[in-house]
Amino acid sequence: MDVPRILDAISSPDDLKVLTNEELAILAAEIRQEIVATTSVTGGHVASSLGAVDIIVALESLLTMPRDRVVFDVGHQAYAHKLLTGRREAFKTLRCYGGISGFTKPTESPYDVHFSGHASDSLSIATGLAKARQLKGTGEKVVALIGDASLSGGMAFEALNYMGNEQLPLVIILNDNEMSISRNVGALMKHLGNIRANGHYREAREGLQEAMESGGPVARSLLSLGKKMKESFKQMVIPDTMIFEALGIVCTHPVDGHNIAELRSILSLVLEMDGPALVHVVTRKGEGYEPARRDPERFHGTGPYDIASGEAVKKAAVAPTYTEVFGRAISAEAARDEDVVAITAAMGGGTGLKGFAAEFPERFVDVGIAEEQAVGLAAGLSCGGKKPVVALYSTFMQRAVDQMIIDCALPAENVVFALDRAGLVGDDGPTHHGVFDMVYMRMVPHMRVLAPSDEAELVHGLHTALALPGPVSLRYPRGEAEGACLPDAPQMLEVGKSRTVREGDDVALLAFGRMVGCARGAAELLAAEGIECRVVDMRWVKPLDEEAIAAAAATQLVVTVEEGVIAGGAGQGVLEVLARQGAAAAALTLGIPDQFVGQGPVGQLFADLGLDAPGIAASVRAALK
Amino acid sequence: MDVPRILDAISSPDDLKVLTNEELAILAAEIRQEIVATTSVTGGHVASSLGAVDIIVALESLLTMPRDRVVFDVGHQAYAHKLLTGRREAFKTLRCYGGISGFTKPTESPYDVHFSGHASDSLSIATGLAKARQLKGTGEKVVALIGDASLSGGMAFEALNYMGNEQLPLVIILNDNEMSISRNVGALMKHLGNIRANGHYREAREGLQEAMESGGPVARSLLSLGKKMKESFKQMVIPDTMIFEALGIVCTHPVDGHNIAELRSILSLVLEMDGPALVHVVTRKGEGYEPARRDPERFHGTGPYDIASGEAVKKAAVAPTYTEVFGRAISAEAARDEDVVAITAAMGGGTGLKGFAAEFPERFVDVGIAEEQAVGLAAGLSCGGKKPVVALYSTFMQRAVDQMIIDCALPAENVVFALDRAGLVGDDGPTHHGVFDMVYMRMVPHMRVLAPSDEAELVHGLHTALALPGPVSLRYPRGEAEGACLPDAPQMLEVGKSRTVREGDDVALLAFGRMVGCARGAAELLAAEGIECRVVDMRWVKPLDEEAIAAAAATQLVVTVEEGVIAGGAGQGVLEVLARQGAAAAALTLGIPDQFVGQGPVGQLFADLGLDAPGIAASVRAALK
Repeated sequence: MDVPRILDAISSPDDLKVLTNEELAILAAEIRQEIVATTSVTGGHVASSLGAVDIIVALESLLTMPRDRVVFDVGHQAYAHKLLTGRREAFKTLRCYGGISGFTKPTESPYDVHFSGHASDSLSIATGLAKARQLKGTGEKVVALIGDASLSGGMAFEALNYMGNEQLPLVIILNDNEMSISRNVGALMKHLGNIRANGHYREAREGLQEAMESGGPVARSLLSLGKKMKESFKQMVIPDTMIFEALGIVCTHPVDGHNIAELRSILSLVLEMDGPALVHVVTRKGEGYEPARRDPERFHGTGPYDIASGEAVKKAAVAPTYTEVFGRAISAEAARDEDVVAITAAMGGGTGLKGFAAEFPERFVDVGIAEEQAVGLAAGLSCGGKKPVVALYSTFMQRAVDQMIIDCALPAENVVFALDRAGLVGDDGPTHHGVFDMVYMRMVPHMRVLAPSDEAELVHGLHTALALPGPVSLRYPRGEAEGACLPDAPQMLEVGKSRTVREGDDVALLAFGRMVGCARGAAELLAAEGIECRVVDMRWVKPLDEEAIAAAAATQLVVTVEEGVIAGGAGQGVLEVLARQGAAAAALTLGIPDQFVGQGPVGQLFADLGLDAPGIAASVRAALK
Repeated sequence: MDVPRILDAISSPDDLKVLTNEELAILAAEIRQEIVATTSVTGGHVASSLGAVDIIVALESLLTMPRDRVVFDVGHQAYAHKLLTGRREAFKTLRCYGGISGFTKPTESPYDVHFSGHASDSLSIATGLAKARQLKGTGEKVVALIGDASLSGGMAFEALNYMGNEQLPLVIILNDNEMSISRNVGALMKHLGNIRANGHYREAREGLQEAMESGGPVARSLLSLGKKMKESFKQMVIPDTMIFEALGIVCTHPVDGHNIAELRSILSLVLEMDGPALVHVVTRKGEGYEPARRDPERFHGTGPYDIASGEAVKKAAVAPTYTEVFGRAISAEAARDEDVVAITAAMGGGTGLKGFAAEFPERFVDVGIAEEQAVGLAAGLSCGGKKPVVALYSTFMQRAVDQMIIDCALPAENVVFALDRAGLVGDDGPTHHGVFDMVYMRMVPHMRVLAPSDEAELVHGLHTALALPGPVSLRYPRGEAEGACLPDAPQMLEVGKSRTVREGDDVALLAFGRMVGCARGAAELLAAEGIECRVVDMRWVKPLDEEAIAAAAATQLVVTVEEGVIAGGAGQGVLEVLARQGAAAAALTLGIPDQFVGQGPVGQLFADLGLDAPGIAASVRAALK
């Protein structure tokens, strides 16, 4: 018989209050086992969630939740929080269709404060909660848990600057992964590294703890005395965390993030303070699971894996991913043209640029989580005569819309936006679907927008984007491509010209990107019923192929199909062309309706949205009636 | 006879090289006179451009331009640069229709690097130029001139973080207006204030200068020896500029920004360095023109004024501005509802919130130039039970699109986006027109979008937006409103319901926002020709009034008119409703075509774009043929 687990007795963080530090440590180990057991089946963010277990256990044992608010940055480190807040059973459905989210999600639990997933936003959300607390005169605690990599985002700096000035009552827990230092980029990271290396810190910490422990409740109450005491607290512990101190935020010495007793001791002190405080916690990614400790990068986001070996359980892939094809294509372009520079924002692996980085290290830039800088840098590089390619996930491109408009499009700089994960991404759900880019790209003058329908088209598309003057957006989906034959040499695509991939005169299916395949499938189904559909791979979201649209208007029904929101999308652009042409054609615009789309296998999501072949065929049938 | 001016002999910065410090100082005075003479007629950004004259004269006397690149942040301080780079005659057309821009503009001059206007982007552009220089192996200097207020923008921090890490060869001139300290917000500003107050600095500076001067060319060449020397340079001059130093950027002591000799001395040293360096220059806004010195805020951006007194030359206003009406309306709402909080990003005056700030200081937040924080803070406040109104200019809302989507719309937070300067703004030109917001707002699920057609509708719209659950965007134009009667009490507008303001069955003009007035004018013109137009004030960009659209389809022609880009805009949304309704109506979508719009009086710009009454009437006439 199994020994009963402490975890099974926890239904909310309140249940943590009666546990000793030793019991909490046992609980933390049980949580780690549970995380490994579940993610080995479902996949997930393993390394970071294992690293944060002790912080979460220690922190939530000290809070009264959900009254007290914990804001998780990115949120993929919050699995322990999910297990402590009534979602132990549901956790088995992590990232599954209809299951619980891999991020915090307020519609899933009252213990979740915000939809996390986009880095660097937690501090801003926390400032809002702290300001609301001030206005209401209530006393709930506000805590933000943020990883070191997220600090490079400008939004985090803006929030630090604001909270330091307003002296808002909130606690930042900086989850600093020692192992990630070398990978993290940016001067701030070097600064953190220097702090860690500084012998001062160990000494300062010991001195503080001694003082606090000997002082007991007196020292604790002293700490809440306000400004004067804060000054001395600062002087005691933080000789050198310059940046935060300069911004008016009290910082602690680095704390061992896997020592629950130490964490609780420092957190209980800091939670009593009235102004902004930062607890500098040093953790190890993957703590407690050896394969993830050894290779935290592989276990950042992983599919199912074998627990014993850590080996990925792989599905046999038929085709390469779009990401891989892009990575090889940009290396080939760079070999031919020394002006090509690749820029990413902490997604070198995710955007397929590892090979490029190895081959052309001087022409590869990873700015860290800092999309505004990625796009501004690209504008400057173009201004200096280079041809930068900014490779981002579509959803994170949302962080740099203004820079795209003002710094790149207005001066018609030669910047290529390579938007990976455009369309539905699957398990990561609503924060990660890339469904808006066609809209915010096509609205901008000077911008051209390409949506390749398969991996060969992606190769041609990148080549074309680099050859054209002015900014070009190139969007392609996550995951396995269509299995198209890759060309020996890329071709120039004629601007604004589509290609017809199936003839038919009853209905015209004008499809964009990956939807060309779905439209072809629909055409097959409808052909069996005697409805002959033309399928056009539109290739260009902007400029649209007006000839192809005019020809489509001669059929009984013009149908646009796109993997993006309908509101403002390519389909509405086609309608405008039809109106301008004076064509009184019946038309149907298929795409993502006006809702945020959930998580699950992309095929399932397409089916739910009527964007798979049967769904498209059904819409056509209904419209023809 | 007039004494010949040095300024009249300057056709490019090369001509500065032969001048002595004394002559350069005389030139600077002449430039100030010219700036005052011109802006007193055209209006413009007077205080900041006067403050930066000496920096620009000193800097450009040391550079070889346009090979060396100077990136101006915001760019409204660059008037002296314009006068030195062959635009002395053209300067008289500053901000006029067809004239030269109030910002730097590469299509205007090879000496202008980028389209400035959106704060905090200069450092990113400069990193791109410096990286391009590195890749090319060339030796041009890269300099960014940035004001202290712009440093609060997250994009600037992202760039500092990047350049410090990469040790890119570029010089940042921090133009630090002592007078603006009290107004500037943010902990970073306090930090800069502390530096200034520090006696160390004066001493350190004197020490450095002595050393350098006595060392002569030797000291200068030592300074370019690289890292080791940089360390000692640092130790000599910068005991305490903690933030920049922590990021790996060498900083100077504060330099008197109105002493050309001193500026040239320090700049010539710093320009020889191989890594990133920051020159901390202290200036006074409005320097050299007493009225602007006394009231730099009024002279930040001003219309025409009397040179002797500094008094504004005012046109008699018939109606209040939309901004004023918004300011009074939000104060009234806040008086009724203690949950209303107003947030702005360094635009408290510009968005009409001064009265609110005085009346409800605890519920007014100015986060500085930090739109991401403004929107994230709003999300957190809503999460904490408050009803935040984020008041931004439409064009600067582009900086926080992701935060609007992920932090506000996805969780359906009660955040109102009050977008001032929506539509064409006039003299500030393409970087400041707010022509995209309807597109990027309406694409987002959970978002509702209101476009009031006059000031009374704005009052109702704000009331409605605050009363509705979930996010609402409320957009209204710059400048004088329509002269509508203001209501005693605001009313709730029914969601998705338009109002018909003129009956007519030949043509339906579905108009949004300020375009309702233009559409009415067009209807008058067409009525004289026997064409009866219905004019519908659509009120809601989202959700659209589908009944009104269906009714419109029964006329001969459906015309949409909006003050925003056509691509993805409200008109294309109307077309989609028509298609869904199966209406085979002839339709015309009027709005901003696929181009960036220039500067000039809004009425003139409307006429050019066919969006004034005669233009709309002409489009209708042509479509009916």
